[in-house]
Amino acid sequence: MAVPPDSEFSLIARLFAPLSDAPHGLGLRDDAGFVPASEPGQRTCITKDMIVAGVHFLPDDPPDLIARKLVRVNVSDLVAKGVVPNGCLLAAAFNENRDVAWLDAFAAGLAQDLETYGMVLIGGDTVRTPGPDSFSLTALGHVADGGFVGRNGAGEGDGLYVTGTIGDAGLGLKILRGDLGTVALGRRTPLIERYHLPHPRVAFGAALAGFATAALDVSDGLVADVGHLTQMSGLCARIELERVPLSSSAQRLVKSDPALRLSLLGAGDDYEIVFSAPADAAEAIAAASGASDTPVTRIGHILAGEAGRVDVVDSAGSVIDVPRAGFRHF
Amino acid sequence: MAVPPDSEFSLIARLFAPLSDAPHGLGLRDDAGFVPASEPGQRTCITKDMIVAGVHFLPDDPPDLIARKLVRVNVSDLVAKGVVPNGCLLAAAFNENRDVAWLDAFAAGLAQDLETYGMVLIGGDTVRTPGPDSFSLTALGHVADGGFVGRNGAGEGDGLYVTGTIGDAGLGLKILRGDLGTVALGRRTPLIERYHLPHPRVAFGAALAGFATAALDVSDGLVADVGHLTQMSGLCARIELERVPLSSSAQRLVKSDPALRLSLLGAGDDYEIVFSAPADAAEAIAAASGASDTPVTRIGHILAGEAGRVDVVDSAGSVIDVPRAGFRHF
Repeated sequence: MAVPPDSEFSLIARLFAPLSDAPHGLGLRDDAGFVPASEPGQRTCITKDMIVAGVHFLPDDPPDLIARKLVRVNVSDLVAKGVVPNGCLLAAAFNENRDVAWLDAFAAGLAQDLETYGMVLIGGDTVRTPGPDSFSLTALGHVADGGFVGRNGAGEGDGLYVTGTIGDAGLGLKILRGDLGTVALGRRTPLIERYHLPHPRVAFGAALAGFATAALDVSDGLVADVGHLTQMSGLCARIELERVPLSSSAQRLVKSDPALRLSLLGAGDDYEIVFSAPADAAEAIAAASGASDTPVTRIGHILAGEAGRVDVVDSAGSVIDVPRAGFRHF
Repeated sequence: MAVPPDSEFSLIARLFAPLSDAPHGLGLRDDAGFVPASEPGQRTCITKDMIVAGVHFLPDDPPDLIARKLVRVNVSDLVAKGVVPNGCLLAAAFNENRDVAWLDAFAAGLAQDLETYGMVLIGGDTVRTPGPDSFSLTALGHVADGGFVGRNGAGEGDGLYVTGTIGDAGLGLKILRGDLGTVALGRRTPLIERYHLPHPRVAFGAALAGFATAALDVSDGLVADVGHLTQMSGLCARIELERVPLSSSAQRLVKSDPALRLSLLGAGDDYEIVFSAPADAAEAIAAASGASDTPVTRIGHILAGEAGRVDVVDSAGSVIDVPRAGFRHF
């Protein structure tokens, strides 16, 4: 007898094999692939994030954006450590009711962003689930020896910096959930886009090793992620609320509802880079900011004190109680 | 304010960080880890398999066995290619109703088998899901240059071999589902154990590169997996039904229900190695079989013909229609 066409295999061949290559992914025709070899003086880094429908994205989010967000949250993890992405593996559990058009759109989004970030698909697994769609991406990249920027190197007196603006994605999610009432279309759109599609700070990340003592991406929420950095560095941090950069859309919403402001410090999904750097790094940071066209703001300092503690202070220097400490995964 | 204890982080620290290490997993305290460096003359391989409750395991399977099976299906993928496992990343979406005891048992099973196979936990992600538990493991390993045994190298006239016995796990699943009626306890137990806990052929896999022209593990079902091998090799295969090795438990069940016999060729989860090798390799195969204490049986041959075709023949050489061509993932 001939083995009948297996729909998993034909699906992989049609949708995912074109994102693979012969030297590493073996055209996705085998059970395993090869990790791209690192050059002398480089190391290979690896990360793995998982997203679940109803938990990390909304089930009716556009499928191409779900795939692109999956790529980008993993790319963000790497670039916030100074690592240059080069490949990935995908495990996809599609809900059994997703039709071919949905899968096609998912694969198209995946293709688009693997191209954007120069990543080859090396392997993975594709299954059906009666439950919510669940996707995990394993992302690989390379970094020069000594170029990896961990969470644990912050020094007392370092400045604390963040790229871009904070809270837009959290506001986008609130809008999608109907939690903000009526928001004018012109303000809604950029915030929702920011929730659907992070923009990892690739160009700035490539310069991090030149000045940053510790870094990570802002995914759980600014205060929570600074807490991870200070916890691992055995220090604490002081964030000046007035310095936390907001987009013009966020500023307008905060103006009409000041209570929103503090909630933005706990909102997730920003995918900016928060990092610490010594005072004498200011010039290098400004140069990297200019060269990569990435806004960078000093929002506070690293201080001696209880490991992991993060104080948010107002313009008078008084500590403010921040209600929500970041997205709880668990 | 101090960042409150985050239960995801404390869970990771308690359950999973002990399975990590400083040089690669960074104690699971960062967003990314390091791929173990390969020695000169070696390459690093990677694979990723996903399992979902209700699809790939039963929701009331013991949690330690679920974790161990997850490790072993990935180890099996690697060792059936001649690759030596060394590390992994875990993405775990636990159903929100799983309690701490369940998570503890899962982690204990993971720890046990990472130890068994000499693997360090490099990273991953832990989330909660309202749906079925879903786990994916990304497994890494090393192989000598030229030592990777793909699916695509089988040659015309090669013998077709399989390790161990075929169909036990499929019978174990049938018993668990109540599809086989009453089965004596002494026969039930080894079959159910085989379903719950594969035994990847690590020692024999390490010798594969010495003689095998193509290989993969039997996970979808013998006929389906031989079909993958012949498809990728552009050839076809003939399997002699009488030669397919059955355990004594399977033999007894087949004796009382002869219709079961053919179904075993399509049952999944055996995690044996099926491989092709030229006629002059018989001595090397026998030596590897003896040295690794692994039974190996020649079950047929690779022939010229329609790529991917697999004929199963009876003792008279007549082609038999095999009803089920392997587990459909999709």
